[in-house]
Amino acid sequence: MSKGGQIMSNKTILIAGLGLIGGSLARAIKAGHPEYHVTAYNRSQAPRDFAMQAKLVDEVSDDFEQLAVAADVIILNFPVQLSIKFLETLANLPLKPDVLISDSGSTKQEIINSAEKLFSGQAVRFVGGHPMAGSHKTGVIASDALLFENAYYILTPSPLSKPEDLAELKLILSETHAKFIDLSAAEHDAMTAVTSHFPHVVAAALVNNADDFSDKMPFTKNLAAGGFRDMTRIAESSPDMWAEILMSNPDNVVDQIDQFTDKLQAVKSLIQDKQSDAVWQFFDQARKLRAQMPIHKGAMANFYDLFISIPDKSDAIHDVLGYFSCHHLSIINIKINETRVELNGVLQITFKTKHDLETAEGLIKANTDYDVYQ
Amino acid sequence: MSKGGQIMSNKTILIAGLGLIGGSLARAIKAGHPEYHVTAYNRSQAPRDFAMQAKLVDEVSDDFEQLAVAADVIILNFPVQLSIKFLETLANLPLKPDVLISDSGSTKQEIINSAEKLFSGQAVRFVGGHPMAGSHKTGVIASDALLFENAYYILTPSPLSKPEDLAELKLILSETHAKFIDLSAAEHDAMTAVTSHFPHVVAAALVNNADDFSDKMPFTKNLAAGGFRDMTRIAESSPDMWAEILMSNPDNVVDQIDQFTDKLQAVKSLIQDKQSDAVWQFFDQARKLRAQMPIHKGAMANFYDLFISIPDKSDAIHDVLGYFSCHHLSIINIKINETRVELNGVLQITFKTKHDLETAEGLIKANTDYDVYQ
Repeated sequence: MSKGGQIMSNKTILIAGLGLIGGSLARAIKAGHPEYHVTAYNRSQAPRDFAMQAKLVDEVSDDFEQLAVAADVIILNFPVQLSIKFLETLANLPLKPDVLISDSGSTKQEIINSAEKLFSGQAVRFVGGHPMAGSHKTGVIASDALLFENAYYILTPSPLSKPEDLAELKLILSETHAKFIDLSAAEHDAMTAVTSHFPHVVAAALVNNADDFSDKMPFTKNLAAGGFRDMTRIAESSPDMWAEILMSNPDNVVDQIDQFTDKLQAVKSLIQDKQSDAVWQFFDQARKLRAQMPIHKGAMANFYDLFISIPDKSDAIHDVLGYFSCHHLSIINIKINETRVELNGVLQITFKTKHDLETAEGLIKANTDYDVYQ
Repeated sequence: MSKGGQIMSNKTILIAGLGLIGGSLARAIKAGHPEYHVTAYNRSQAPRDFAMQAKLVDEVSDDFEQLAVAADVIILNFPVQLSIKFLETLANLPLKPDVLISDSGSTKQEIINSAEKLFSGQAVRFVGGHPMAGSHKTGVIASDALLFENAYYILTPSPLSKPEDLAELKLILSETHAKFIDLSAAEHDAMTAVTSHFPHVVAAALVNNADDFSDKMPFTKNLAAGGFRDMTRIAESSPDMWAEILMSNPDNVVDQIDQFTDKLQAVKSLIQDKQSDAVWQFFDQARKLRAQMPIHKGAMANFYDLFISIPDKSDAIHDVLGYFSCHHLSIINIKINETRVELNGVLQITFKTKHDLETAEGLIKANTDYDVYQ
């Protein structure tokens, strides 16, 4: 392992792009490897100043080329198209031999294809990366060494990488406490098309569809609640980001559109043929499959959920939280689904530790007759 | 107004079907009109016993016909097909002249067509009804006179009704504090197809689609988080209920499938033709439209939301609630979106009164430097 963290302990790591992701990666790398020299490129000055003042990094500059030629590892934190432009710049620089380049973009095939073309025959290693985490907050000011804790961090090998290059990157990023998963770029882009890129198309199409219909029947918008609200929440995401992701993953998204269209047309035929048993099967299959999906914990996996069936009274949540108030419990999330329109609405409280979960369960049982379960 | 509440104050109201909806309607009717004689039919005994013991109603029986012939108003609370069977029974009974019949089913055209056919030429009035509320709890035990408070309660006229019949029903149901809306059955079924029935098809199809794909790439299910989770939550709804609703509203659902398919195919063409600006427009239009929809308050309209941008620390929610703890604020809902994966996650707290909202806002501003807004 000639490039392993053990031997080259005084690596220089360049974080290019000091936003939420770049800043959080810098924090995690410094936390795990204080001996590394971490540098950061950012075009605008304020994030650079913040990163220096907060000691996220050791050196900042708006001169990408100068930092790049001194780096052993370069991580590009931009939208995919912009990262490809930075790769083009890198391809014309006298980089350190065997420099390890990675990125944090949302699609992987296009950037790996570009890297392969640009660095073919050069002593450059490229590993694609996609840390699947974010926050409602943006910018380096919101950066957090634990932003990626328990989140999936996909690493995609390229023709310019060997397995030990992925291992080296994981070592550098170990303090993210992310769950690293190796996937081919093709696998990554196909799976994220199914679970994320195509659903964004669906959400936006549902909104545009309801709006079209509202031209005929304006009251329609008032009835859009419950399920419709949940299904269209991501339709308010950034059009810049999602148009770019779609254009960067066109074949997989088009495949999903075709697959989904087939599914809708099959349901249409069942309805028209009055096959009510088959329609029941369609819904029942979905219900069973979703119940089995590892989806219910979401990004809060590895934390501890308590479910409390509260009465439909205005002070019930307040009372429940009141029982916890002197115990300094590590509540990290709290959620009550609508008690109207939709048929679920149990209070779900997520704790950081199992001990706190059990304390909370005991307090609810001692103070109320509510149904409570883990 | 020969049948108005003012004159016929000693009406007999039959609630047929003592579940959550029937029980809640009974409670609201008794609350508003203690002088009415409220009777209830239910096939099984336990809900009847509960309703008598809890004084929801004045009389219960498992003999529908006996209660029906004595009733001035009959409200059927069953799935649509079963309500139609009860209408068939009613059509062969010596009902009181000008009896007012209504229902609480999820679609309206089919039952109104049945009523028109069955009662044509008879002195029977029929008004369709759809109280758009529910709860995660079921059964008459969970019934609540305020289940429908601020919820839409759609009333659909029929060829067997006059405007004053809708007015009479609203008077009878006034203590639900629902927002009554008159819509034609055609309008109701078309709009709910857009906002609810078709979205249930989409949610189930997304799950079935992801499952199909997981046969090829099993890790897909692990990536299903965030937006996908929200978009498929309603796929775990009752297949009994949703298969019946679809089969009861076939033309509108099929129309929606066609409209939506056209939208998806249009996006497919844009992607294939590399029209990235048009894809951006598609997402941007959806984002703007959704931001304008009266959707953000959902079933909690008329209550007061406070939004607090909290730091991504485990004790932030606990601290915020701690500032409220001695003030007995009327918190009726609390929600924090994921702070991972998705790009929003502000703490949203819903209060019953504007006074409490403002108290809470003042407490947050006095104790923290968090961004807080209404």
